[in-house]
Amino acid sequence: MNVTVGRRTRHYRTVAFDARKNAVRLIDQRLLPHEFQVVATPNFRETARAIREMTVRGAGAIGATAAYGLAQGARAFGGRDLQQFSRHVDSVYQTLQTARPTAVDPVNAMNEIRSRMSQGKTVADQQALALTAAEEFADDDVRDCEAIGRQGGPLIQDGMRILTHCNAGWLAFVDVGTATAPLYAAQAQGRKFHVFCDETRPRSQGATLTAWELAQQGIAHEVIADNAAGHLIQRGEIDLVIVGSDRTLGRTGEVTNKVGTYTKAVLAERHDIPFYVAIPLSTIDWELGSGRDIPIEEREETEVLGAWGTVAAPGHRGSGLRLGRRVYVRVANPSSGARNPGFDVTPAELITGIITPVGIFKPKELWANRRKLGYRA
Amino acid sequence: MNVTVGRRTRHYRTVAFDARKNAVRLIDQRLLPHEFQVVATPNFRETARAIREMTVRGAGAIGATAAYGLAQGARAFGGRDLQQFSRHVDSVYQTLQTARPTAVDPVNAMNEIRSRMSQGKTVADQQALALTAAEEFADDDVRDCEAIGRQGGPLIQDGMRILTHCNAGWLAFVDVGTATAPLYAAQAQGRKFHVFCDETRPRSQGATLTAWELAQQGIAHEVIADNAAGHLIQRGEIDLVIVGSDRTLGRTGEVTNKVGTYTKAVLAERHDIPFYVAIPLSTIDWELGSGRDIPIEEREETEVLGAWGTVAAPGHRGSGLRLGRRVYVRVANPSSGARNPGFDVTPAELITGIITPVGIFKPKELWANRRKLGYRA
Repeated sequence: MNVTVGRRTRHYRTVAFDARKNAVRLIDQRLLPHEFQVVATPNFRETARAIREMTVRGAGAIGATAAYGLAQGARAFGGRDLQQFSRHVDSVYQTLQTARPTAVDPVNAMNEIRSRMSQGKTVADQQALALTAAEEFADDDVRDCEAIGRQGGPLIQDGMRILTHCNAGWLAFVDVGTATAPLYAAQAQGRKFHVFCDETRPRSQGATLTAWELAQQGIAHEVIADNAAGHLIQRGEIDLVIVGSDRTLGRTGEVTNKVGTYTKAVLAERHDIPFYVAIPLSTIDWELGSGRDIPIEEREETEVLGAWGTVAAPGHRGSGLRLGRRVYVRVANPSSGARNPGFDVTPAELITGIITPVGIFKPKELWANRRKLGYRA
Repeated sequence: MNVTVGRRTRHYRTVAFDARKNAVRLIDQRLLPHEFQVVATPNFRETARAIREMTVRGAGAIGATAAYGLAQGARAFGGRDLQQFSRHVDSVYQTLQTARPTAVDPVNAMNEIRSRMSQGKTVADQQALALTAAEEFADDDVRDCEAIGRQGGPLIQDGMRILTHCNAGWLAFVDVGTATAPLYAAQAQGRKFHVFCDETRPRSQGATLTAWELAQQGIAHEVIADNAAGHLIQRGEIDLVIVGSDRTLGRTGEVTNKVGTYTKAVLAERHDIPFYVAIPLSTIDWELGSGRDIPIEEREETEVLGAWGTVAAPGHRGSGLRLGRRVYVRVANPSSGARNPGFDVTPAELITGIITPVGIFKPKELWANRRKLGYRA
């Protein structure tokens, strides 16, 4: 999407490749929203490090980064021996995979690249195929998000007030995003609307990443405390809720997403407000038979007990601290601990529709439409 | 309640009076939970300043502070002329009232003190009566909270997991608190239970004040992000919800409390968990006929866009910042704004019971029991 730095507005992808320098170019998401910087990783080890240290995060984005990283590693091989090359590629694969060992997107992405590479007869052929496949993988990610925008865009009517939770925006993908795609599509068609970004504690991705994205695209928005959504919905100030999903159960229509999503779905149902989930097909889990079986990751308690931010004026006055310095502050009582579930599960009956690149479905219709949705038995 | 500083445990009230020094003694709530300090205000102007600058906050606590401040000001008068004395007391009253102009508790408290003073025939009599009345006002506040504890204590059973929101604890009153009173009563009877403290963004009173209170009293507890309550309730990990109230409509049973309360009530109802509200009689509004008529204060957006805390280790490493320094950090995207409603309204049908000093009532029964609940037509 477009980013304005100073007076210059340019189009960026979250992840891109510089073939001449054999480098992966990444928007450094650890610095956002306070600083915009694109970093280039000069070799696959640095690319793996960028995944591990969350310079890049978000399912689609780390998938594409791993795909490019594999091509980057393959292209750095100097010899002509196919067996040696294959061992080298194995080691690149391992390095990239272990950067985020529980994530499934890098693995799926790299398997796709490897399968394409196997069609090449020489090292040079395979190197060229790796890059082509990585570029296609990234382009497919963008195309899918654009298709979600085409499907979901018509839901966003002029004057609507929309609630979002967390960040399923273009920063989490190669471009466009999922939950944000219908918003960008509606904006492109000239419609005006207002977005409320749930802060999304404890990591505040709504206040930081989604708010930054919307500001860059010139979409009217305001950040709210997660506590405020209920009040706004009750007073009739929200017309539609749209969120992303980390894992969607194809058999039941249940949606796993950032903790707090379930609460918003319950509120939306009580007040008869449509609740939509936008997903790429890659997040559909066709195996699991119940949301209760989804393991919910307990994250570290420091996230809940404090906050990351930059030292700002009210705290700066007379304190001697440098403005703009990024720090972690402890908010909670120092002797207290915390629980920190990272996700929750929203049942099918609370979801109005699931927006996919190939259409909008009732959650319970996913299974019946499984062929169309990419299910391979 | 008891506070442990170093190895010494002592009983403190949030607000107390030192008659010998004619000073009001206040726990400085701006420093909590990171530092415990009692300050003494040497004259009524300083007492007013402590109310204005929120050294003391919470309905019952600022009521008692104003009552003591009026007695303090009256006692500082040197002459014997009743007319001059009366003008002096008027000016003390004005100073204390304008410290928090929209709060109703200081006004009610000071009117009570003044009405008692009018029974004195000399300046000295009236000065003595002012102090007696202020002490009685504070004692009544404590007695009411203890009575709430007696009424609500039996609801807290052994092994229960209880959710609270914001702080309606002893720091908001002279002692004991309202939402916390049943917890302290159950603990005194030897029962063991676990409390989840909603962080309560944007001001985080749950993570700071309630967590500090419970830690001081040795009650097992954990802080959670406001987003996590829905997940815990859904997975059956919460048995009961208890909150306070800033304004309870005697005619309809609707409850105004810190924003986010309504959301918890909706979740509790969906999962058949009892939802209780603990209130002193002074928060009942017998006039208003609908919760929709309650003006909801919009607070400043900096609260939502950032957080106050102390510089802690993860942010400190290599930053040159002093550990423990209290700062405001900007969390949200710098160019984004925020909405910040301070309260929300929970309808009667979501409330299992309202715990008062004189009994537990269904919200709709308040009006029928209005005489018992202190209504004077």
